[in-house]
Amino acid sequence: MKTPVCEMLGIEYPIFAFSHCRDVVAAVSKAGGLGVLGVARLTPEKLETELNWIEKEIGDRPYGVDAQIPAKLYGDEAGGLTLAELEARIPEGHRKFANDLLSKYGVPELPPGLSPDSGRNYADSREAFSRDKELALLDVALQHRIKLIASALGAPPPQLVEDAHRKGIRVAGLVGAKKHVMRHLDAGVDIIIAQSYEAAGHTGDIGGMVLVPEIVDAVAPVPVLAAGGIATGRQFAAALALGAQGAWTGSVWLTTEEAETHPILKEKLLRATSSDTVRSRAESGKPARVLRTAWTEEWDTNPASPGTLPSPLQWLLSADAYDRIERAAYSSEGARQLMGYGAGQVVGLMNQVKPVQQVIFEMVDEYLSVAQRFADVFTENGGSDR
Amino acid sequence: MKTPVCEMLGIEYPIFAFSHCRDVVAAVSKAGGLGVLGVARLTPEKLETELNWIEKEIGDRPYGVDAQIPAKLYGDEAGGLTLAELEARIPEGHRKFANDLLSKYGVPELPPGLSPDSGRNYADSREAFSRDKELALLDVALQHRIKLIASALGAPPPQLVEDAHRKGIRVAGLVGAKKHVMRHLDAGVDIIIAQSYEAAGHTGDIGGMVLVPEIVDAVAPVPVLAAGGIATGRQFAAALALGAQGAWTGSVWLTTEEAETHPILKEKLLRATSSDTVRSRAESGKPARVLRTAWTEEWDTNPASPGTLPSPLQWLLSADAYDRIERAAYSSEGARQLMGYGAGQVVGLMNQVKPVQQVIFEMVDEYLSVAQRFADVFTENGGSDR
Repeated sequence: MKTPVCEMLGIEYPIFAFSHCRDVVAAVSKAGGLGVLGVARLTPEKLETELNWIEKEIGDRPYGVDAQIPAKLYGDEAGGLTLAELEARIPEGHRKFANDLLSKYGVPELPPGLSPDSGRNYADSREAFSRDKELALLDVALQHRIKLIASALGAPPPQLVEDAHRKGIRVAGLVGAKKHVMRHLDAGVDIIIAQSYEAAGHTGDIGGMVLVPEIVDAVAPVPVLAAGGIATGRQFAAALALGAQGAWTGSVWLTTEEAETHPILKEKLLRATSSDTVRSRAESGKPARVLRTAWTEEWDTNPASPGTLPSPLQWLLSADAYDRIERAAYSSEGARQLMGYGAGQVVGLMNQVKPVQQVIFEMVDEYLSVAQRFADVFTENGGSDR
Repeated sequence: MKTPVCEMLGIEYPIFAFSHCRDVVAAVSKAGGLGVLGVARLTPEKLETELNWIEKEIGDRPYGVDAQIPAKLYGDEAGGLTLAELEARIPEGHRKFANDLLSKYGVPELPPGLSPDSGRNYADSREAFSRDKELALLDVALQHRIKLIASALGAPPPQLVEDAHRKGIRVAGLVGAKKHVMRHLDAGVDIIIAQSYEAAGHTGDIGGMVLVPEIVDAVAPVPVLAAGGIATGRQFAAALALGAQGAWTGSVWLTTEEAETHPILKEKLLRATSSDTVRSRAESGKPARVLRTAWTEEWDTNPASPGTLPSPLQWLLSADAYDRIERAAYSSEGARQLMGYGAGQVVGLMNQVKPVQQVIFEMVDEYLSVAQRFADVFTENGGSDR
């Protein structure tokens, strides 16, 4: 299953793992894949700590980072807005709807004076959609031994690609439709990630069976990774069959032993079926696939809902709510109903907590058994390859 | 690529082709796949003619039929409704909206007294959602040398499965989610068709990368065919990698040489991208993936739209409109904008008219090159299989 991207990045298996959790990133790189740390929810200081930890953990093995660099930002027309200015743009009715929801589901306020570093996973993420903050994070990352920068939410700035290339770092761009490809190629990316409808997070609406070969043909000879619906070796093999050079995975790591996923959320993910996700604007303001929860249902279908706000205004409401929900979820059934997270449809196949290494090895082994089945067509057993 | 379903049905390649066009059905069976005629839009008399023609054309080769047997029908609570009773339930406002749309886009009425057999492709299809008519069609089919009956829109009646099995005919059931599987297994189907979000027609919302392995695991050892997003050998290989025993295809045949697709529609399909379809209730009243057209947009997004009607009431309006649109499309730009058809996202990869045989042979050859690439992992070239 070695493809040119394996050589390009010095990895054993073309399995890329996006995670907000440094433990997962390190474990994937140690198992032969490429761990990729999502940086958007960190501060530059904390990122420095995380990357130092990862490098100590994995030694010389390669790893990468993923940044959200929005091509268009709310407030651009006003020359960019500060966090305080963004806060001021949230209408009172939306704020009230969010607060009333939390009350309705029995989620208390946070204890007064709680520090951002004390059990508030989302406090640092309130600036996640700021371009300046994202570039400051990348400045930190560029001082480290990363091998890959992935750019979500739009093509990366050409200057970033140049800086990365000067340091021998490869750049990948996520696309959800063919029409977005040119902007990335023009920016000079080395790899395109075709993110399909099935995927967690900010997705388009083209299914992977169609999107992957379409993007492969559109960008050849630039290598393509398939993202969306990949948690097992059969899906990994399908991605390679479609012409991708590797798999970009995310959801599957949320239920691994190493993942610092909130325990209640982990349980919800393990129980969820492939029908329990929804593409909703209720989390970030942009369409993103997340678990279907009371939070998404109330925003999307309650007749009293004021409708969701544009990104990042909606995210500011969600981040505040999520901190309250996480804290309350141990004791409040209502909080558990509201609790959600980005999750792909593949969540339906995630039914057991496993170590990261086991997930990787099982993907590889299952890929090999598909390959063996396919190889049989060329032997005397060719007449019956199953 | 031979799988047990090849032996079960006596076919060379596990490529199943759904089509309303007898020429396509015959050409697929002659090329080594299994042609499957959609019967829902025919009368029993015409079906008799079509099946006799196909059998004369293909000799001893196997073929099948596909029927829509709705599990639940509008009017069931009233003991079933006649066509006239259904017509009477269409509100005046909806009828007016449909007629006004046709006027707005410059589509004239049909010439007075036009017979159903004179250039009205949809006239016979107005009873397509009647259970009695569908069973009458199947009575005709059961008197022929068919090898397969596929049941869409719900599990087949157990009596039908029994009748089919007594004649050595296999029965397949289409499902769009795991929760529908048990009803089909209980009815005794021999094959499950996992129809994904990408597919044309009445689809669910789970992408193929997730749905196929999920259904394969849920029904094992019953064989599964993958439907949705399959037009090329890479996609065929991906379906087999996911654990399917074959591919159930549909859209790809619409632009073949043999297909009796309306010439203007064929052009629209060849030009369409993967983003040019929509899951809409505007055609049949149930969510179905179709080309995005002025017809779907006006029903779904025009503020003046009265909303779509339940199936089959909406279909009665669509069928009447489609006959007028087909007739006008040669000369009216408006008719061309309204003109649509069931089409999967894979329409973005259908850019050239080809003979049916070429499509099949290219699928097989491309599958074989994927298999060769996968097989290389076991040889000295294993280090670089692309």
